[in-house]
Amino acid sequence: MDFVKKHIVEPGATVRLRKIATVPDGPFDDKQEAYDFTAETITKMRELQYRLYVEGKQSLLIVLQAPDAAGKDGVIRKVLGHLNAQGVRTFPFKVPTEIERSHDFLWRIHKCTPGAGQVSIFNRSHYEDVLAVRVEDLVPKSVWSKRYEMINNFELLLAENGTRIIKFYLHISPAEQLERFKERLDRPEKHWKLNLSDYDARQKWGKYREAYETVFEKCSSKAAPWFVIPADKKWYRNAAVSSIVCQTLKEMDPQLPKVEVDLDEVRERYETELAQLDDDS
Amino acid sequence: MDFVKKHIVEPGATVRLRKIATVPDGPFDDKQEAYDFTAETITKMRELQYRLYVEGKQSLLIVLQAPDAAGKDGVIRKVLGHLNAQGVRTFPFKVPTEIERSHDFLWRIHKCTPGAGQVSIFNRSHYEDVLAVRVEDLVPKSVWSKRYEMINNFELLLAENGTRIIKFYLHISPAEQLERFKERLDRPEKHWKLNLSDYDARQKWGKYREAYETVFEKCSSKAAPWFVIPADKKWYRNAAVSSIVCQTLKEMDPQLPKVEVDLDEVRERYETELAQLDDDS
Repeated sequence: MDFVKKHIVEPGATVRLRKIATVPDGPFDDKQEAYDFTAETITKMRELQYRLYVEGKQSLLIVLQAPDAAGKDGVIRKVLGHLNAQGVRTFPFKVPTEIERSHDFLWRIHKCTPGAGQVSIFNRSHYEDVLAVRVEDLVPKSVWSKRYEMINNFELLLAENGTRIIKFYLHISPAEQLERFKERLDRPEKHWKLNLSDYDARQKWGKYREAYETVFEKCSSKAAPWFVIPADKKWYRNAAVSSIVCQTLKEMDPQLPKVEVDLDEVRERYETELAQLDDDS
Repeated sequence: MDFVKKHIVEPGATVRLRKIATVPDGPFDDKQEAYDFTAETITKMRELQYRLYVEGKQSLLIVLQAPDAAGKDGVIRKVLGHLNAQGVRTFPFKVPTEIERSHDFLWRIHKCTPGAGQVSIFNRSHYEDVLAVRVEDLVPKSVWSKRYEMINNFELLLAENGTRIIKFYLHISPAEQLERFKERLDRPEKHWKLNLSDYDARQKWGKYREAYETVFEKCSSKAAPWFVIPADKKWYRNAAVSSIVCQTLKEMDPQLPKVEVDLDEVRERYETELAQLDDDS
């Protein structure tokens, strides 16, 4: 299956999240088939990332957005965490600090974009400035409504510099979220995660949905597409994300650097060293 | 086996690298036993790191130093890369940039130290400033000879702030290094790694050994010990490093945060939400 094609938000398309299923409708016959697919895809993804890293020219930015408990941490642990640590950095964006708030909203983001050969993973992102900030009414509409264009311009800047951007929304149902909150209650080692504000946020589910829909409509571009991933089933979510990352890396087509040295010369040096080693022993 | 005890450089101890074997003398009967041990240890290491991350109080800094082809990248890929990406960052320290050189030698290092709950991995480090810099004669002895004390003071600063520091030297023989250079020659997909300067560095093996010995003598402290790991056998190297990281995390004894909320209140909220969900459907 072409997960890119299936889940991409075409530039300018209108998205109605309520009409998009949170459960998969294929292509796996069972969980095990999805696990096998994901494992295989992760292996390919690692190989391609290795090439990206040694090529040292292009970079990849992966943005994760989702309601609480939808699986941002899970995707990082189970899928993206398999990327080689030397070429990847994860940035969780939380409530901005005082210094961060004294700058424009993209200032703290820009510092975390990936350099050549690198992958950055954003756990939440600059999109919070048109999501939480909009829903929680933290700045006036006159301010946040201008940000969509600024985000597009910013992402274009990155794209022009060789950065591919893919943005995932993990789409879960309110019922599945509640089920996951229940798990936290049932397992004492997860009690530290409990938070009444998680329940408060559920009251604003509709407003967040609306804010996300605006984001998808205004900020899914060819250079930086959004993907809406059905996320009620973790095995499907992981399969789809790994496949889209893998497909993106494949399109970027990173190449191992050309051999710059004279192979014969290196071979000669090797033989000399080897002879010397034998002499020493 | 207690790998910490076996490989630690006791503070102030004199180290003669030539007297330390580069091949293991136990405890594994065969490779497979080492692989199993490492896999098991990595699982434990991940669990402890998870606690470190959510505790959010202490941090861990892992320094890797070694001759070329000794396995710094391998240790990151096979051992440390299994740490959860959200709590770990890897920093390769290469030839300093112009801006970096315009500052003191610890300036660029300090920016990469781990925050609370985090792990930083240094692929090469501030120690290059008393290793390569010393051997290649990049600054006068009057400059580099003062750096050992500055390094100790710097590491003490970090330690006082809750950072545990462990420093690994991957100890390989010149013969094993040459064998690995040969592999690069034999495998076309590794040709891009070939470099005549690798062979040049072999001419200075004795000088580097001496420089490392000074480092171990002057900069292995209780707060920031050095470990000399026999590294001719990758399976032993990985087992030893994973075990020492795991042991260190165990000693740090990170704790899950206390539950701050009223569990009954959360349960009540859950029931309310559940009832509402049933109403909606």
